Amino acid sequence: MSFPRAFASDNNAGVHPEVLAALARANDGHVRGYGHDPLTADAEAVFREHFGEGTRAWFVFNGTAANTLALQSVTRPYHAVICTAMAHLNVDEAGAPERFTGCKLMTADAPGGKLTPADITRCLGGRGDEHRVQPKVVSLTQATEVGTLYSPEEVKALCDVAHGHGLYVHMDGARIANAAVSLGSPFRQFTTDAGVDLLSFGGTKNGLLGAEAVLFLNDLDPQDFPWVRKQGMQLASKMRFLAAQFLALLGTDLWRRNAEHANRMARLLAARVRDIPGIRLTQPVEANGVFAIVPAGHIPALQAHTHFYVWNAETSEVRWMTAWDTTEDDVERFAAAVREVVK
Amino acid sequence: MSFPRAFASDNNAGVHPEVLAALARANDGHVRGYGHDPLTADAEAVFREHFGEGTRAWFVFNGTAANTLALQSVTRPYHAVICTAMAHLNVDEAGAPERFTGCKLMTADAPGGKLTPADITRCLGGRGDEHRVQPKVVSLTQATEVGTLYSPEEVKALCDVAHGHGLYVHMDGARIANAAVSLGSPFRQFTTDAGVDLLSFGGTKNGLLGAEAVLFLNDLDPQDFPWVRKQGMQLASKMRFLAAQFLALLGTDLWRRNAEHANRMARLLAARVRDIPGIRLTQPVEANGVFAIVPAGHIPALQAHTHFYVWNAETSEVRWMTAWDTTEDDVERFAAAVREVVK
Amino acid sequence: MSFPRAFASDNNAGVHPEVLAALARANDGHVRGYGHDPLTADAEAVFREHFGEGTRAWFVFNGTAANTLALQSVTRPYHAVICTAMAHLNVDEAGAPERFTGCKLMTADAPGGKLTPADITRCLGGRGDEHRVQPKVVSLTQATEVGTLYSPEEVKALCDVAHGHGLYVHMDGARIANAAVSLGSPFRQFTTDAGVDLLSFGGTKNGLLGAEAVLFLNDLDPQDFPWVRKQGMQLASKMRFLAAQFLALLGTDLWRRNAEHANRMARLLAARVRDIPGIRLTQPVEANGVFAIVPAGHIPALQAHTHFYVWNAETSEVRWMTAWDTTEDDVERFAAAVREVVK
Amino acid sequence: MSFPRAFASDNNAGVHPEVLAALARANDGHVRGYGHDPLTADAEAVFREHFGEGTRAWFVFNGTAANTLALQSVTRPYHAVICTAMAHLNVDEAGAPERFTGCKLMTADAPGGKLTPADITRCLGGRGDEHRVQPKVVSLTQATEVGTLYSPEEVKALCDVAHGHGLYVHMDGARIANAAVSLGSPFRQFTTDAGVDLLSFGGTKNGLLGAEAVLFLNDLDPQDFPWVRKQGMQLASKMRFLAAQFLALLGTDLWRRNAEHANRMARLLAARVRDIPGIRLTQPVEANGVFAIVPAGHIPALQAHTHFYVWNAETSEVRWMTAWDTTEDDVERFAAAVREVVK
Repeated sequence: MSFPRAFASDNNAGVHPEVLAALARANDGHVRGYGHDPLTADAEAVFREHFGEGTRAWFVFNGTAANTLALQSVTRPYHAVICTAMAHLNVDEAGAPERFTGCKLMTADAPGGKLTPADITRCLGGRGDEHRVQPKVVSLTQATEVGTLYSPEEVKALCDVAHGHGLYVHMDGARIANAAVSLGSPFRQFTTDAGVDLLSFGGTKNGLLGAEAVLFLNDLDPQDFPWVRKQGMQLASKMRFLAAQFLALLGTDLWRRNAEHANRMARLLAARVRDIPGIRLTQPVEANGVFAIVPAGHIPALQAHTHFYVWNAETSEVRWMTAWDTTEDDVERFAAAVREVVK
Repeated sequence: MSFPRAFASDNNAGVHPEVLAALARANDGHVRGYGHDPLTADAEAVFREHFGEGTRAWFVFNGTAANTLALQSVTRPYHAVICTAMAHLNVDEAGAPERFTGCKLMTADAPGGKLTPADITRCLGGRGDEHRVQPKVVSLTQATEVGTLYSPEEVKALCDVAHGHGLYVHMDGARIANAAVSLGSPFRQFTTDAGVDLLSFGGTKNGLLGAEAVLFLNDLDPQDFPWVRKQGMQLASKMRFLAAQFLALLGTDLWRRNAEHANRMARLLAARVRDIPGIRLTQPVEANGVFAIVPAGHIPALQAHTHFYVWNAETSEVRWMTAWDTTEDDVERFAAAVREVVK
Repeated sequence: MSFPRAFASDNNAGVHPEVLAALARANDGHVRGYGHDPLTADAEAVFREHFGEGTRAWFVFNGTAANTLALQSVTRPYHAVICTAMAHLNVDEAGAPERFTGCKLMTADAPGGKLTPADITRCLGGRGDEHRVQPKVVSLTQATEVGTLYSPEEVKALCDVAHGHGLYVHMDGARIANAAVSLGSPFRQFTTDAGVDLLSFGGTKNGLLGAEAVLFLNDLDPQDFPWVRKQGMQLASKMRFLAAQFLALLGTDLWRRNAEHANRMARLLAARVRDIPGIRLTQPVEANGVFAIVPAGHIPALQAHTHFYVWNAETSEVRWMTAWDTTEDDVERFAAAVREVVK
Repeated sequence: MSFPRAFASDNNAGVHPEVLAALARANDGHVRGYGHDPLTADAEAVFREHFGEGTRAWFVFNGTAANTLALQSVTRPYHAVICTAMAHLNVDEAGAPERFTGCKLMTADAPGGKLTPADITRCLGGRGDEHRVQPKVVSLTQATEVGTLYSPEEVKALCDVAHGHGLYVHMDGARIANAAVSLGSPFRQFTTDAGVDLLSFGGTKNGLLGAEAVLFLNDLDPQDFPWVRKQGMQLASKMRFLAAQFLALLGTDLWRRNAEHANRMARLLAARVRDIPGIRLTQPVEANGVFAIVPAGHIPALQAHTHFYVWNAETSEVRWMTAWDTTEDDVERFAAAVREVVK
C-alpha cells in the first residue's frame, strides 16, 4: 500500500518510524489498563520535564476531545468560551464543545488568527447578568489555524488580562511543536511560564499514530478530570500505547526534528511560490502552513497535480500544509507545477 | 519492557504481532483523513462480508464510545434503554450513556447476565405516558459480562419481542469473537440473521491496539451517524490505522484464532480449579472468563501470585479472564497456586 | 365552569381563594422583572422565617424543575443521586433529572417509600473508581409518594450518614406542608435542623396556582443558581406573581389550614373504608393519601363514581388523594360508594 | 402595594383585569391535571381559529422555554439555528438553547433586527461536511428585538429560501400581537400562510400573568413534543390556569386591544420626543418600543425620573418600552421630562 504525499493536511501523513518502533517495544506482556501502568507514569513525567513540575498530563484519542474535555473540566454549562471566529473549536468540531460542555462560544473576528486583549474585554459586558452566559475561559490556538504564532509576550499579555477578570486560559496546541521550534522557545516559555492554565498538546499532526494530551499547568487542580475523561468516552483501556507514542516523541528530540522539518518545508514552499505572478501569500509563514491567493480558475488543475484544500472559496485562498514526511522534492515539484499552471 | 501476564482483564494484554505488522504496512505516504481512504473502504467491506450486505461499519476508539454512540444514533433524550443491571453500559461507563444520550437505563436483575423477553415487556408499562421515559432500545451483551452466551435462538426471541414493541436491539459485542467461536456460529447467525439492529463490535479485547466498530445491520439507515461520531469526539484523523487493525483481524482468521485460544485457556483453567475444595464456579464457562467463589481469606495471597479482580466482594466471587496471549503454562502455574493456597 | 371534585390528585384541585386575592393585590403598577421586586424580597424573607436565617429561596414554576435544578446546583454530570425506586424523581419526571444534570439515579427498593442509612452506604462501593458514577446527593421525599413520613430523627440519621460520606441531602417537599402538620413540627425541625441541604418546597399541591421554591438551607452557598435557573428555563419575568402566592401561603397560616384539612380528610376516608371487607389499606395514613388494595373487578365501577388512579395494577392497589378543597361530604359519599360496590 | 409605571419592559406591567377574572372563573372544582381538561381543549381550539386548522398548540411557562423547546422538537444536537446576532435567543437566554438542544447558533449581523434571505444562504457552506454543524432551523423574531417588523411578504421570502434548503422556520413571537395589529394582518397571514413552521406565541408581554404557547403550524407533526415539554420541565400540573389566560386573551379581542394600546403609546412617545434636539430615534417605531440615542450624560437623570434600560452603552442608545397599561399621561410626563433634561 503506497500513497502519494500531498499538501492537504499534516494529518494525512502517517506515523514516524520511531513511533511504530516504540509501540512494538511497549508490546510485551500484560499491564494494568486505563493508565495504571509504568509507561503512562513515564510519559506523565516527560510532560513534567517539558512543562514544569506543576503539570498533570492526561492522554486522549484526538484533538476534538482534548479541547472539549479541557474546557469541560473548568466550566459549568452557563459559562462561555472566548475564541476567534476561525478557531477550530468554533468551526470544525461539529459543535462538540457546545454539546458536551453546554457552553456558548463567544467569537472575535481575527483575520490573522490571533486574539487580542481587547477581544477579551469586549466579551465581558454581561458579567453578573443572569440572562447572559458568563465568560470563563479564553482559548488560543498556537500555532494558529492560519500558521501564525503568538510570541511568549503576547501569550502572557492575554493571560494577564484573562486572569485579571477571573478567566482561565486554554491553548489549543494541535501544532504546538511547530510553534515551539519556530519561536525557538522551550514549550514552557510560551505556555506555563506565560500563564496558560490548560493545554491541548497535539501529537497526531507531529508524527504520532493518534494521541493527544490534556495538560493542567501551573498546579491547576485537575479535580475530577478522571471522570470527565471517562464520561467523555476518552479513557483508553490499553493506555500504554498512547503513552508509548508520547515517550517516543517527547522523551527524545523527535518532536523537534519533525516540527523543524515540516516548518522548513513550508518556508521552502513559500520561497518558491512567493514571486510567481498571480500568487499572493496571505499570512506570514511561521509554522507549517502556507496560505495563498491563487487564481480560482487554476485551482482544479493544481489539485489534480497534488491534493490540497481551498481555505476560502470567496477569495480563492488555498491552504498548503507540510508534514514531518514532506520532502524537498515534493516541494520543488509542486512549486514547479504552480509556476507552470499559473502563468 | 517486559511485564508478567495475569488474569485481570483481556484488555491488559498487548497487541497481536500481526496487527502491529498491519499498522506498519499501512504506514506509507499520505491518505485523506477521517476515513476517506482506501483502507477504511476495505475494512468496511470486510464487515459486510461477515455481517451481510446491509451492513454499515463505523470505527471508533473504544467500547464506551461504541455503545454510547450506537444508542445515541436511534434515541431522543426522553427515551430509555433496557439492559441488565450488570451491563457494562450500566455499571462501568461512569454514566456516559445517560450523559451523552440523555436516556435513562431501565435495568433487569439477571444473575446469569442474560435478558429474557419478560424483562423487556416488564419495562413497557408507561408507554405513551408523557411522565415516563419511553423505552426505545434493548441492549444485550454477547458474550455477557459473566462469560455466558445467548444462543442464536435466544437472540432471535428477544429481537422478535423488541421489534414487536417498536424497540431496536443493540448488542454490546465487546467479546463478540469469543461468543462466535464458542457458539460455533458465523457472526451473522446470532446478530444480523437473528434481527439485531446495532452492534458494538469489539476489537481491542481480541488483540487490537485499540479499535471498535459501530455496525448498522439489516439495512438500518445510519442517517446522521457521521455527525454523531464527530460530535461524540470519536472521529479519528488518521483513520487508516483503525481500519488496518480491523483488516488484520477480520480479513484473516486472526479473530478466530485469538478468541478460540482465549476461550480454550478459560476452559482449561476451569477444568483445573473446578475440583479444588473451597472453589465453586458460579457461571458456565462459555467464553474467556471464569467466575468462582474463593474463600475470602485466600484472595490476597492469590492476587499476589497473579493479578486478578474481585467481582463481588460480598460473596467473595472473583473473575479470572484469559486473553489471546495467555499460555497453558500461565494457567497451569496459576491453577497450581490456587490448589496450594486454598487447601 | 364547574367540575366535580375527585380523589385523583391534589393537583387536580384549584387555587385557594386567598391566593387569588393575593394575586389581585399584587397586580398594581410596574415592578422590575425577574425577581428584582419588593414582593419577591418579602417572600424570600418569609422563607427565612420558616427555615432559618441561613436560607436562600428561589422560585420556579413546577416540581420537576424544583427537583432537577436543586440537583443540578450541586452536581457535575458524572455524579449520581441516591433515591428510592418509587421516587417521583425516578419514575415521573420523564428523565428530566438525568437529561438536565447528566447524573444517574441510584435507586433503592423501599416499599414504604423511605430510604434508610443502609440504602445510602450500599451505593458507595465504587467511590473513587473512574469507571463508576460518583454518588453526590441523597434525595428524600417528604411526605413520601405513598403518604408516609420521615420523623425528624430519621431525617437527621440520614443526613448524618450522608454528610459523613460527603454527600448532600435534598428533600423533595412536594407535600411538605402535609408532612409538617402531621408531624406537628415546624418546617425547620425536620429540614434545616435535621441537616437537610436543599429543599424543593411544594406550593402547588397545597393550594397555589403554580409555584415551587428551591431552598438552600444551612447557609449552603447557592453560588451560580441564578444561571442554573435561567438556563433551566425557569426564570419568571413577572416573578411578583410567584412571590405573591408564597406570601399568601406562608405569610399567614394558610399552608397549615390547607394541609391539616387535606390530611384530616384522608384520615376520615381511611376510617370509613378500613373495615369494608375486601379493602385493605397498604400504608399508614400519615399525610393526604390513602393507599388500598381493592378487588380489581370493582375498580372501574368506583372510578366511574369518582375519578382516582390505580397505583399498582399487578396488586390492584389504588391511590386516593385528598386536597385542600375536599369536603367531608365528598368523603362520606365516596366511602358509601366503596361499601356499596365492594360487597 | 402600588408601584409606578415605567418604560423599562412590557413584562414589568401586571396582569390585565380580564385575565385575572378568567383565572377566577376557571377556579371551580377539580379537573384532570397536565392539560387533560376542558379549558385546555378550548384554548387549543382558539389557537386553531387564529392560526388555521393544521395548528397544534402547547402551553409552557415562559418565553425561554417556548423558544428552546420549539427548537428542540425539530433538531438533533449537531444541528445549528440561524438567527440575528441580537436575537433574544442568542443574547438573553443564558445559553439555554445551546445547553438544552446541543445546537450551535449561527448569527448574522442585522442592525435593524431582521434576517434576509442572503443571511440564510451565507450559513450553508458546510452542509454535508461532518466537521461542521448542520443548519436546520431559521429563527425570526416578530416584532424584532428593536421594534421593527417583517412584512408578510418578507416572512414568505425567508420561508421559501429556508424550505428550499430543507430548513424549518421558527418565529419568536414574544410580541407577536404588537406585530399583528401594526401590520393590520390576522396572525395567520404572516405566520401560517407565509410558511412559518413553529411559533413561540407570547402572552406574558401582552397582559397575561405568565403563559406562552408553542405552535406547530401547517400540519407540522409535533411527534414527541409531550415528552420534550415534560423533560424540559415545562408541563404544568394545573394547566387549566395557563389555558384560561389564553382564552381570555385570544377568545376575545383583548390581545388586539392590549397591543394596539401599547403600540399607540409608543408612537405617541416617539412623536413627542422626535424633535427634541439631542434625541435621535434609531429605529422605525413599528411596535411597542422606541429606540433612541440620548446624550449619555443625561441618561441617569432620566432614569431617575422613570425607569428604563440602556440598550447600547457604547452609542448611548436607550430602549423605551410601552405596555398594555401605559397611559397617555405617563407618556406626556416622560416626554416633558426628556425635553426638560435634554436641553
